[in-house]
Amino acid sequence: MTVKKILSPANEFLKKAAKLKQKKYRDEFGLFVTEGERSCREAAESGFVVDCIVMTERFFESHEGEFAGFNRIVTTNKLFMTLCDTKTPQGVLAVVKVPEERELTGNRYIYCDGIQDPGNAGTMIRSADAFGFSGVIFSAGSVDVFSPKVIRASMGSVFHIELKTLAGAEFLEQAKQGGYFITASALHGKSVDIHNMTVLKKQIFVIGNEGNGVSKEILKQSDEIVHIPMSGAAESLNAGVAASILMFEVSKHE
Amino acid sequence: MTVKKILSPANEFLKKAAKLKQKKYRDEFGLFVTEGERSCREAAESGFVVDCIVMTERFFESHEGEFAGFNRIVTTNKLFMTLCDTKTPQGVLAVVKVPEERELTGNRYIYCDGIQDPGNAGTMIRSADAFGFSGVIFSAGSVDVFSPKVIRASMGSVFHIELKTLAGAEFLEQAKQGGYFITASALHGKSVDIHNMTVLKKQIFVIGNEGNGVSKEILKQSDEIVHIPMSGAAESLNAGVAASILMFEVSKHE
Repeated sequence: MTVKKILSPANEFLKKAAKLKQKKYRDEFGLFVTEGERSCREAAESGFVVDCIVMTERFFESHEGEFAGFNRIVTTNKLFMTLCDTKTPQGVLAVVKVPEERELTGNRYIYCDGIQDPGNAGTMIRSADAFGFSGVIFSAGSVDVFSPKVIRASMGSVFHIELKTLAGAEFLEQAKQGGYFITASALHGKSVDIHNMTVLKKQIFVIGNEGNGVSKEILKQSDEIVHIPMSGAAESLNAGVAASILMFEVSKHE
Repeated sequence: MTVKKILSPANEFLKKAAKLKQKKYRDEFGLFVTEGERSCREAAESGFVVDCIVMTERFFESHEGEFAGFNRIVTTNKLFMTLCDTKTPQGVLAVVKVPEERELTGNRYIYCDGIQDPGNAGTMIRSADAFGFSGVIFSAGSVDVFSPKVIRASMGSVFHIELKTLAGAEFLEQAKQGGYFITASALHGKSVDIHNMTVLKKQIFVIGNEGNGVSKEILKQSDEIVHIPMSGAAESLNAGVAASILMFEVSKHE
């Protein structure tokens, strides 16, 4: 594998990589960026295709031979910063291929119905990974899973579990036909306390948008609606927290 | 109560209010800002002292008589924006007095040992409110609880529960002497699965810093160390999620 030194701000590859902060270019190039040593290592060890590892001269010198199995690009700190979303980067990032969409092969999934906050999306991916879920599915109206903030909040877990994006209205219907039981999380006249919820082998748990909750259409499609019992004054929980508590509770049924 | 129209960018009060985005000035003036209609109403109905409600001309005209029990300041959209931390504000915010520190009077608390992320801090306050906890205590090294992002992430819950800031090293020792059982959340050789944890009437649950976890000193002081069982590949959970799952589990012991 090659090591290439790039010191010119006019370099086409660096200009392209800097654009990956925007969804438009992630879609166009089919690439995304993950920052930091730990996350690069997760990417390197995952099934994802790493296009290259970009590092500062300082990182390259102090981490001799690291990521030697990959094409490496070494650049100045200033040029490196143009690729970063974080303010105090560690001097290393990976440019990774957006994976192809595949059929679901696992048993338990979270379905995000219009989740907007990248922190919440990343937290759900991290918790799904922690509680043995197969993956997280994002509806067409949700935040882009390959945005720098989602990747960062997932703490490397994007590289561990199945991810599906842009799921349309027909997705859950097909999943039902494929044998998945659909459980929506919502406070609702007919909702069941999560302590009494149905837990089956193949199941998809729907978490709603931060402001509006699960959409009416999906509530209608759902096999069961569940809620998390609350004893205090807050009206609702943060979406990432609600999803995580649900997964924690489900993980008891092994 | 008065309604005062301010149209000059040179106005001293607006200049002061704009500074409240910075901790330094929140400390100096003993004031903080909460944005949005819902949060202003929470502040108005709470035990907090509302200094004044600031609104745009447009909000004032379309919400006749709202917040009539408070001193209201009506200003232009442009000047209003100088006070806001959010990019698309609703046209109303409250300037609120930072409450005086009081002795703890409740039974169950979360203690944040160096929590840095404002979203995590706000989420913990929201979940504490949801699960009937008395309050949240922040160590001296934690994020400022009255920062705009914490207030926002708490979704109004800062106005519902007890908050204590700048708790020093001696705080937990005194709490122990006051009869509180101290439980720390950490993966540790001696840690107990949270399904088997001790739950008592007076108890403080410690959540550690996002990167480093609970400090050694506090682990030593703790009566029990607990962990959340995880079956997947993620090494840890988001701090706000871990605290929320802990509170959810504790709330079952009523």
